[in-house]
Amino acid sequence: MPRLILVRHGQSQWNLENRFTGWWDVDLTPKGEEEAFAAGKLLAAKGVLPTVAFTSFQTRAIKTLHLALEAAGRLWIPETKDWRLNERHYGGLTGLDKAETAAKHGEDQVKVWRRSFDIPPPVLDAGSEFDLAKDNRYAGIAIPSTESLKDTIARVLPYYESAIVPELRKGETVVISAHGNSLRALVKHLSNISDEEITGLEIPTGQPIVYELDDNLGAIERYYLSEK
Amino acid sequence: MPRLILVRHGQSQWNLENRFTGWWDVDLTPKGEEEAFAAGKLLAAKGVLPTVAFTSFQTRAIKTLHLALEAAGRLWIPETKDWRLNERHYGGLTGLDKAETAAKHGEDQVKVWRRSFDIPPPVLDAGSEFDLAKDNRYAGIAIPSTESLKDTIARVLPYYESAIVPELRKGETVVISAHGNSLRALVKHLSNISDEEITGLEIPTGQPIVYELDDNLGAIERYYLSEK
Repeated sequence: MPRLILVRHGQSQWNLENRFTGWWDVDLTPKGEEEAFAAGKLLAAKGVLPTVAFTSFQTRAIKTLHLALEAAGRLWIPETKDWRLNERHYGGLTGLDKAETAAKHGEDQVKVWRRSFDIPPPVLDAGSEFDLAKDNRYAGIAIPSTESLKDTIARVLPYYESAIVPELRKGETVVISAHGNSLRALVKHLSNISDEEITGLEIPTGQPIVYELDDNLGAIERYYLSEK
Repeated sequence: MPRLILVRHGQSQWNLENRFTGWWDVDLTPKGEEEAFAAGKLLAAKGVLPTVAFTSFQTRAIKTLHLALEAAGRLWIPETKDWRLNERHYGGLTGLDKAETAAKHGEDQVKVWRRSFDIPPPVLDAGSEFDLAKDNRYAGIAIPSTESLKDTIARVLPYYESAIVPELRKGETVVISAHGNSLRALVKHLSNISDEEITGLEIPTGQPIVYELDDNLGAIERYYLSEK
């Protein structure tokens, strides 16, 4: 039976500093590296061994994947990186911490952006220090200037269908190392969660979530591997 | 113009202990990790930035690749792992150190195996502690029981032609993180080195070797990046 393992990257420097990160390429903290390695140790201990891996274009997710695979003795499995698994792009909020955001935009507005399904934050100004137009990794890609969760889902799901579903149909155990919102997109789809509810669903860092799937790739069961 | 960067993995625990390693999956030492990171820093400093990566199925080469790409700011490029880039399989010598090998087989015989192009060491006994028959990574692969350098070349070059040459033809800058003998296979081919000479050519660990190639993928120039 196909299995899908979702891992949100370990703590990054900006998770620690409580800053909106999005597409900005922030590295893991030492604690984040430990979380990633522990996730892989858990996969090995429970015998849930991935055979194929996917991750985003972002260092924190790629390193989480590599540390987890190393700890699981699975560094040799094929891995594919794609920008469509990137975090939600936070537009003009990128780089701001909670206090700065509230001071600039007001508490109520920040809540709207955090909690709404389809309202994106203001766009990132062209020429901002967080503008990725000159980053080679995104050459040829229409980099968003901001995204709602709905926008994020609209690029994650087609990638899931075209690249990941074929692996699951072959019976592979697929691990995806990605981000809070790109993983929300998958959980919403697989667990049939409403637009209203999904924005409140928190995906913890470094905790493997396992989906046992049927032959039509419907979810039979979803669980935290640490609780099995 | 296409470019090919060859990197031999950093020091492994068995390099340090002077033991024949071959296909046995030995990890890097801390020094080996430093060498790998330094190789990536050098790529960045010289502006020789890989766009596509290949490596073997072996931890020491995969980790060398990951550390080098991280240091070069290129962790996001596509990477492909293949067993045909593995180290030469040392058969029954696997796990022996120099003194043990000489005591078991005699100094002269050891020299023959080390220096000859087409004489393989004795086969690895089935059921040896170094038998990889039960290692999932090699499921479906006819694992050799021993290899000469000639045997190694006979699997490396077809892989180079089928998987790596198409990337070079697209003009990519390809990095290959691999092993002393799988890289000898490529250097022999690209620099047109004789069977006699190639067995004496030492490829240092963690030192990027760069080939500048013409449109037919012939070598215009080969150099150690540290000397440019």
